[in-house]
Amino acid sequence: MDFAIEPPERADRERGGAGRGGTNGRRGAPLYQQIAEQIRDAVRRRELVSGARLPAIRDLAARLQVHRDTVGLAYESLASEGWVETRVGRGTFVSGPVSSAPIDPPLSPLVSRLLDHSESRTPHAVPSDTIAFHALVPDPDLFPVDAFRRSLNDALATGGADLLGYADGGEAGLREVIAAHLAQHGIAAEPDAVVTCQGASQGLSLVARAFAAPGDAIAVEEPTYQAALGILIGVGLRPEPVPTHAAGDEPGVDLEALERVLAQPSVKAFYTMPTFHNPLGITTGREHRRRLLAIAAAAGKPIVEDACAIDLRFRGRSVPPLAALDDSGLVLPLFSFSKSLFPGVRCGAVLARGRSLEALRALKRATDLGDARTLQAAVASFVRSGHYRRHLQQWRRTLAVRCDAMLEALQEHLPRDLRWVAPEGGYQIWVELPRDLDAREVHAAALRAGVLIAPGDQFHVAGRRARGFRLVYAQSDPEEIREGIVRLAGVIDQLRTASVAAKGRAVNVGGTHG
Amino acid sequence: MDFAIEPPERADRERGGAGRGGTNGRRGAPLYQQIAEQIRDAVRRRELVSGARLPAIRDLAARLQVHRDTVGLAYESLASEGWVETRVGRGTFVSGPVSSAPIDPPLSPLVSRLLDHSESRTPHAVPSDTIAFHALVPDPDLFPVDAFRRSLNDALATGGADLLGYADGGEAGLREVIAAHLAQHGIAAEPDAVVTCQGASQGLSLVARAFAAPGDAIAVEEPTYQAALGILIGVGLRPEPVPTHAAGDEPGVDLEALERVLAQPSVKAFYTMPTFHNPLGITTGREHRRRLLAIAAAAGKPIVEDACAIDLRFRGRSVPPLAALDDSGLVLPLFSFSKSLFPGVRCGAVLARGRSLEALRALKRATDLGDARTLQAAVASFVRSGHYRRHLQQWRRTLAVRCDAMLEALQEHLPRDLRWVAPEGGYQIWVELPRDLDAREVHAAALRAGVLIAPGDQFHVAGRRARGFRLVYAQSDPEEIREGIVRLAGVIDQLRTASVAAKGRAVNVGGTHG
Repeated sequence: MDFAIEPPERADRERGGAGRGGTNGRRGAPLYQQIAEQIRDAVRRRELVSGARLPAIRDLAARLQVHRDTVGLAYESLASEGWVETRVGRGTFVSGPVSSAPIDPPLSPLVSRLLDHSESRTPHAVPSDTIAFHALVPDPDLFPVDAFRRSLNDALATGGADLLGYADGGEAGLREVIAAHLAQHGIAAEPDAVVTCQGASQGLSLVARAFAAPGDAIAVEEPTYQAALGILIGVGLRPEPVPTHAAGDEPGVDLEALERVLAQPSVKAFYTMPTFHNPLGITTGREHRRRLLAIAAAAGKPIVEDACAIDLRFRGRSVPPLAALDDSGLVLPLFSFSKSLFPGVRCGAVLARGRSLEALRALKRATDLGDARTLQAAVASFVRSGHYRRHLQQWRRTLAVRCDAMLEALQEHLPRDLRWVAPEGGYQIWVELPRDLDAREVHAAALRAGVLIAPGDQFHVAGRRARGFRLVYAQSDPEEIREGIVRLAGVIDQLRTASVAAKGRAVNVGGTHG
Repeated sequence: MDFAIEPPERADRERGGAGRGGTNGRRGAPLYQQIAEQIRDAVRRRELVSGARLPAIRDLAARLQVHRDTVGLAYESLASEGWVETRVGRGTFVSGPVSSAPIDPPLSPLVSRLLDHSESRTPHAVPSDTIAFHALVPDPDLFPVDAFRRSLNDALATGGADLLGYADGGEAGLREVIAAHLAQHGIAAEPDAVVTCQGASQGLSLVARAFAAPGDAIAVEEPTYQAALGILIGVGLRPEPVPTHAAGDEPGVDLEALERVLAQPSVKAFYTMPTFHNPLGITTGREHRRRLLAIAAAAGKPIVEDACAIDLRFRGRSVPPLAALDDSGLVLPLFSFSKSLFPGVRCGAVLARGRSLEALRALKRATDLGDARTLQAAVASFVRSGHYRRHLQQWRRTLAVRCDAMLEALQEHLPRDLRWVAPEGGYQIWVELPRDLDAREVHAAALRAGVLIAPGDQFHVAGRRARGFRLVYAQSDPEEIREGIVRLAGVIDQLRTASVAAKGRAVNVGGTHG
C-alpha cells in the first residue's frame, strides 16, 4: 500500500513556499487537516482502495516530520467522517463502499419496449468515404456560424444575466418571432399561444402526453418520421399506422383508412406531416387537407401537424398549413428551426389554445423547467435582423440545385421501373421499388458500394415491410450526388443480374427433376 | 371590403423603381403572381377575412392598370390553391376555415392530475418592493456573464458548425468535465456514464420514467423539492412521502419509515437530497447514508440522489455523496450547474450504468433528441479554464456571509420557541413553527408586510400540512436580509397578539354561557 502524501506546511511557512505545486490543497489549514485532506484525495483517486490499511501513526508521523498526535487527529477526523475505520489492535483501514454487489434495478416495461425499439434501429457507423443520402440533417458547411455568433453576443449583451436565469414559459422574444413568422404562413397565433421546446421532437412528446395516456395510441402516417415512432413508444404509446402514398390519385394519407383509425376510442390524436412529408417528400393539396380536417373534427381528435419543413419550399406554390385552415383549435402545429437553420440550437415550438395550451405549459415545466433562453434570444435576434430570411433564400437555392442534380441523375441512371416523385421543397426523395427488389437488400449492397440510403422499414412500425427507400440530397454537393446515384444504379443492376442468375439456376435444378 | 394592394411591376421596370418599398414581395415575378401574392398576404394578415368578396375582375384590373385576364389568372390561381372560391354569378370569395367551432379535445387523465397539482401551486406575482426569501434561485447580480460570454465565443470558435448539429448523447467535452468534477466528490464515473440533460429536473423525469410506469410510486422525502412533485405527477407517478426531519437525534429521512415504504411493490425508487436538503437545508451524516444505502440495496430499489448543491458547501467538512459510497450501481446521482453557476444554461446530468444507462440514453433521445451542444461546450470551456472554480469560491463566500446575516437576524429577532438549524452550505434555512402558528398564515401576513417566504405545504404532497417555512438567503444582500427578518418577526408578533386577543374574546364569550 503506497500513496502520494506530502508533509503539511505551517501557515507561517506558506508565503515563501510557492514552488510546492497544488497537491496539498489546504495550505494554511491546521496540519492534521492537511494530512486528512490528502488521504481523502487518495481515496477519491482510488490510490487508496477500500480495505487498504493506512500506515501506522508513528510511521506516517516520522515520514511527514510531524508529531504523532497530529497524525492521530487526522485519522480520528477521517474516522468520524466515515472515510476510515479503526479496528482495535489491527490498525486503520479505508472504509469500503456500503453496497458493492452490482444491482441492475428492473426497468419500467414501457422503457423495455423503447429499448427493444431503439435496438432494432441502431444506426450504422458511416465510413468516411461513404456518400451519405441517409440522414435528414442540414449541411454543416452552410451553417451561418459567424452571423449566429454575432446574434448570440448581441443577445447576451442586451439580455445579460436575465437570460441566464430560469426560463419560465420560454423567451418572450422568440415566442413573438415565431408567432410573426407563422403568421406569414397563414397561421394566426398570439405569442402566448407558443410553447417553446427542445426541437419539434420534444413538442411531439409533450403533445402526445397531453392527449394520450400509456396504453393509448396515436395515429401516424406510414411511412412516417422514424424518430416520431421512438418518441411515441418512449411515452408509452402505440403508434397506429395509416397507409400513406407518395403517388397515385391522391398523394398523402389514405383518408378512408384514417377515418376508420380515428374512430377507435384508444386512438387519441393523429400525427401528420402534410408539407414535404418525411420520408415521402410529398405535399398534400388543399382539398386533401380540407377533407382531413373534416374527418378529425368529426372524430373530435386533435391533429399534430409537423410543420418543420414549411420554410423549405424551393418551387411551386405554397399550400396553407392545416393550422391555417383550422379555426377550431384542433390542429396543434409543430415548428422548428432544426431543418431551416440548424438543429443544435434545439429551438422548436408547439402552438395550442385553451386547456391544451395549459396542459402543454404544465408538461413542459414538469419535464425540464424550460429551455435555455440564451439560445432562444439569439435565434430571435437572428430572425429579427434579417439573417434568417437571407439564410433561407440561400439554403432554398442550394436545396433546389441539389434536388435537381439528384432528379437528373435518377432519371439518367436508374431503371425505368423504379418510381419517384419530384419534391417542391424539403430534403428528400422517396424511391419506390418494383416487387423484385428488396429495400433492405438494396441498402446493404449500397453500403458496400459506399452509398448510404435509408431503407423504408425504418419509417414503419416495427416488423412491417416497406417497398422503397429515402434519399436525402441536402447534405451532398451535386457532384457527390451524381456519383452516389451512379453507384446506387450499379448496385441495383448487380442485384438484378444476381437474382436472374439465381432464378436461372433454380430453373435448371428444377429441370433435372422435371 | 378593402385591403392594401399595389399595381404589379414588370420585370423591366424593376431596376429603376427602388422607392416602392417591400409590400409587393415578388417583383420580377409574372404580373398575375404578384397580384395573387398580395391577396394571399391580405388573407394572412386577416385584412381579407373568410367570406369576404374580392373586387370584381374588371374593377381590380382598372385599379391596378392591368389587363382583365391578368386579374382573372390571379383569381384562378388563388382558387386552385384553395385561398378563394368562385360562386357562379355571385363573385369570388375568400375561403373559410374548414373547421371553426372551437374544439377542446379531452386531455389525458394523467395531465388533468398535473394541471390540478399545478393550479394548487400557482406562484404569487412578487411586488417590486418585496424582500424575496421564497425562491431557490441564485442571485443574477453575481452571474459571471462576461466570462461566460467569452467561453461561449471560445466554444463556437473551436467547435464551429459541428456544435450546431445534432447532439447525440450530449457534448463529449461536457461529459468529461462533469465526470472529472464528480470524481473530486468521490464519485467514480467514466464520461460515457454521464447522460446530459436539461437541468437536474429533466434528469429526474428521465430516471423516474426509466424505473416506474404510470400508476407506480416513487418514494420522496417530505418535505421535498417542490418541483420534484410536479415532475413525478407529470409522468403519471405517485410521490409517496417519507417523513424527514430537520433536527432531532438523526436529521434526515426516517429510515424505518423508508424501509416500510420501499418494501411496497408499487414503489419503484427513492428520490433524496442528502446534501443541503431542499427545503430543510440539512446534510445527513455518513452513518445515516450507510444505513440508507443498506435499506435500498436490501429492497433492490434504486436511489435518485439529487446532488445539485454539493458544490455549495461554505463551512464544515464534506460528507461523501451516496454515489461515492455505493459501488453497486443502485445510486443514480443528479448533478446540475443551475445552483452553482446559473440555471439558464440548462446543463444537468444523470449518471448510471448497465441497462439503466441504456434506458436513460434511449429516453433522452426519445424525449428531445439531445441538448444544445453550444451551451454545453461553453460550460465545459468555462470549467476547464478555471472560471467555474473561481466563481464557486466567490459564490460560496457570498453565501456564507448571507447565511450568517440571516442566522444572526433570526437569533436576534425571532421568538425563542421557533427553531432552525444552521446550514453548512446551500441556499436556505428551514424554520420550524410551534403549534400556535400556521405557516400559511405567517406567509400571507408576511406577504402583506413585504416579505415573501415559502410556506412548508408546497414541499408536501397535496393536502398535507407542514409546520414550518423555508427562507432563502441566496438572493438578498445582508441589509435586505436583516430588514426582511425584522419585518417577519413583527408579523409573527402581530399574529400572536391577535391570536391571544381572539382567545381572550373566546374566553369572555364562553364566560357568558358558563
